[in-house]
Amino acid sequence: MVEKGRFKLPLLSNELDAEIQHKIDMKTKPQGSLGRLETLAAQVARIQQTLSPCTDSAMHLVFAADHGVCEEGVSPFPQEVTAQMVLNFLQGGAAINVFCRHNKVGLKVINAGVKTPLPEHPDLVSCPVAPGTRNFAQESAMSADEVAQCLQKGAEMVDFWAADAQVLSLGEMGIGNTTTAAALLAALLDIPAQDIVGAGTGASPEMQVHKAQVIQAALERHQTHQQAPLDVLQSVGGLEIAMMTGAFLRGAALKKLLVVDGFIATSAWMVAYQLCPTILDYTVFAHQSHEQGHQRILSQLEITPLLALDMRLGEGTGAIAAIPLIRLATAFFNEMASFDDAGVSQSA
Amino acid sequence: MVEKGRFKLPLLSNELDAEIQHKIDMKTKPQGSLGRLETLAAQVARIQQTLSPCTDSAMHLVFAADHGVCEEGVSPFPQEVTAQMVLNFLQGGAAINVFCRHNKVGLKVINAGVKTPLPEHPDLVSCPVAPGTRNFAQESAMSADEVAQCLQKGAEMVDFWAADAQVLSLGEMGIGNTTTAAALLAALLDIPAQDIVGAGTGASPEMQVHKAQVIQAALERHQTHQQAPLDVLQSVGGLEIAMMTGAFLRGAALKKLLVVDGFIATSAWMVAYQLCPTILDYTVFAHQSHEQGHQRILSQLEITPLLALDMRLGEGTGAIAAIPLIRLATAFFNEMASFDDAGVSQSA
Repeated sequence: MVEKGRFKLPLLSNELDAEIQHKIDMKTKPQGSLGRLETLAAQVARIQQTLSPCTDSAMHLVFAADHGVCEEGVSPFPQEVTAQMVLNFLQGGAAINVFCRHNKVGLKVINAGVKTPLPEHPDLVSCPVAPGTRNFAQESAMSADEVAQCLQKGAEMVDFWAADAQVLSLGEMGIGNTTTAAALLAALLDIPAQDIVGAGTGASPEMQVHKAQVIQAALERHQTHQQAPLDVLQSVGGLEIAMMTGAFLRGAALKKLLVVDGFIATSAWMVAYQLCPTILDYTVFAHQSHEQGHQRILSQLEITPLLALDMRLGEGTGAIAAIPLIRLATAFFNEMASFDDAGVSQSA
Repeated sequence: MVEKGRFKLPLLSNELDAEIQHKIDMKTKPQGSLGRLETLAAQVARIQQTLSPCTDSAMHLVFAADHGVCEEGVSPFPQEVTAQMVLNFLQGGAAINVFCRHNKVGLKVINAGVKTPLPEHPDLVSCPVAPGTRNFAQESAMSADEVAQCLQKGAEMVDFWAADAQVLSLGEMGIGNTTTAAALLAALLDIPAQDIVGAGTGASPEMQVHKAQVIQAALERHQTHQQAPLDVLQSVGGLEIAMMTGAFLRGAALKKLLVVDGFIATSAWMVAYQLCPTILDYTVFAHQSHEQGHQRILSQLEITPLLALDMRLGEGTGAIAAIPLIRLATAFFNEMASFDDAGVSQSA
C-alpha cells in the first residue's frame, strides 16, 4: 500500500551547476547557440550529477485501461478498440511500435485494467487492478484501495522494466481517456471543463460540448474543488493514469529523466506534481499536443515543450518522437570539442 | 557555365496523391493524429512517386567561405575562425560532426572560398572560387563568372557526394555570413535591413545597428531593388551561399528532399526559390532559428518549420536535428498496420 506521506523527492544538488554550465560554454560554438538543447543537456547532467551524462538507455511503458465514463457517449470509437489496439501493439503494427523501434527505445505494454480479456504475450505485462474504471458520471471511478494499488504497480513496473534506463517515457491507451484526463486536469487546476475539453481522437463539436457537460457535472457531484490530488484521482481518474502517476514518481526517485507525452500523460504527471513539485526538475515535456487543453495547461506552468507537430495520437508517440533530441543534447555535451581542444578563437 | 534559363524544375505529379492519402488514413490511428509527420510522409512519397518512400540515406554538405564585408566590423569573431572551424570539422569535434554521427547522416565539408589556406584532408573537398568575397559595402561581392562557377560547383557537389542520398541537407561556415544572408534576404524580399538583422553568433545591440546600416547602404549602392535574383547574389552574396543555391537546385532536380537549416541556408534557398518556385515542393524547413529575421521570412511564406529550439549555431545543425522526424514520418507510412491488417474498429 502506498501512503500519501511517502511522496518525497530530494531536491537536486546544485553542486555541479557551475561546472556543467562552464563545460557547455567552452564548446566550439557561440554561447547559448544550441538553445533548448543546452538547457536539456544541463538538466540531464544535473539529474545524473555527472559531467558525462548518458541517455542511451530509454524505456517506454504503455499503460492500457478502460473507462466507465464511455457509457456517456464521449468517444467516437467503441470501447473494444482499447483491447484491439493492445493486440496491435503486441503484433508490432501500431505507431508506438514503429516509433520505439526506430528510435531505439524499449517498449512494454501494461494491462492496467482493460475490460476485454487479453491473451498472454511476452510483451504484455498483465496487472489489471479492475476491469476498467466505474462511470465517474455516476460514482467514483475507483476506490481508495484501487488508487493505492495502481500507484504501487506503476512504481513496480518502473523497478522491474526500466531499472537500467536513464530515460523513462510513458504512454497510454484507453478509449475515453481524454475525457478522464480533462476531468482530472479541470479539477486539479480549477479550470472550467469547457476550457479544457478538446476533440480527443476525433469527437465532433457536439460530442465535445457533451463531454464538457458530463465532466462539469461530475466535478460538481464529486465536489472535486474540496479534494486532495489523490482523492481527485479516485473520483474521476483512470487506472492507467493512476499507474502512470506512480511510475512518474518512482522514475524521478530513481533519478531518471521523465519524458512527458501529451494531454493524458500530462494529467497523470500533474497528480504527481501536485503531490511533489520537485518532480519538475526531472521532467521534460516532449510535445505540444494538438488537444487544446494541453496548451492551456503548459502555458499555465510556463513550459514550452520540445516539439509542436500537431500530434494527438497518444500511446506516448510524442514522447518517443522527442527522444533523438534528448540524445543529441547529451551527445554535444559529451563529444564536442572545447575552444582550447580545437584551437579556435573565442569572440572578442 | 550556368545560364539563367536552365533553372527549371518539373512540377511533381499528383497521380499518386489519392493513394498516398488513403494509405495514411487507413493506418491504425485517428485520422490526422500524426499531424506534421503525416504531411511530411506524403511529401516524401510525392517526391519519390512511390508508396514505399525511403529516407535512410541522408547527406549533409557544409560549405565554408569568407566574407569581405567582415572589414566593416560586423562579427564579434575574427575572420580566422572560419578556417579554424573547418579544421574543427575535419577533426570531428564540432557540433555538426556530433549531430551527423548520432543521426547517421553523411558529412562532407566543402571549401567554397576560405581566405586562410587549408590542409588537404579526405573529408575536405577543395574547390574555392575565390579567397573570400569582396567587401560588398565597397563593390560587388562577386563577379558574374564567380556566381556562375559557384552555382555549377554546388550542383557538382550534389552529383558527386549525394548521388544516392534521398535526403539532402546543407550547412555553412563563414564568419560574417549572417550579414551576407541578411543583405540577400532584405534585397530579395524588399524588407528594410533593420527588420531582418539579428545578433548572428553574438553581435551586441550596437553591432546590430551597425550591421543594418552597412547592409542598407550597400543595398542602395548596388540598387538591388532593380536586380534579378542572381544579380543580387553577385552584389551582396557569399561564395558558400551561392554554392548552396546551386546545390539546392540540383538536389530538387534529382528528386531529393531538401532540408533547409536556419537563416543563412534560407537565404541561399530563397535565391533558388525566386529562380524556380516549384522548389518548395521538395523542401522542408527544419527549424525556426533564434535569429529574428528568420521568423519574419518564414511567416511571409506561411511556413512553420519542424523544430523551434532557439538554435542559432549554423553549420546545418538545425537541419540535422530534424532528420529523425523525417525518418519517423516515412517509417510510420511504411510500417504501421492498417485497420484491416490489425482487425481494429474504425470510429463511428
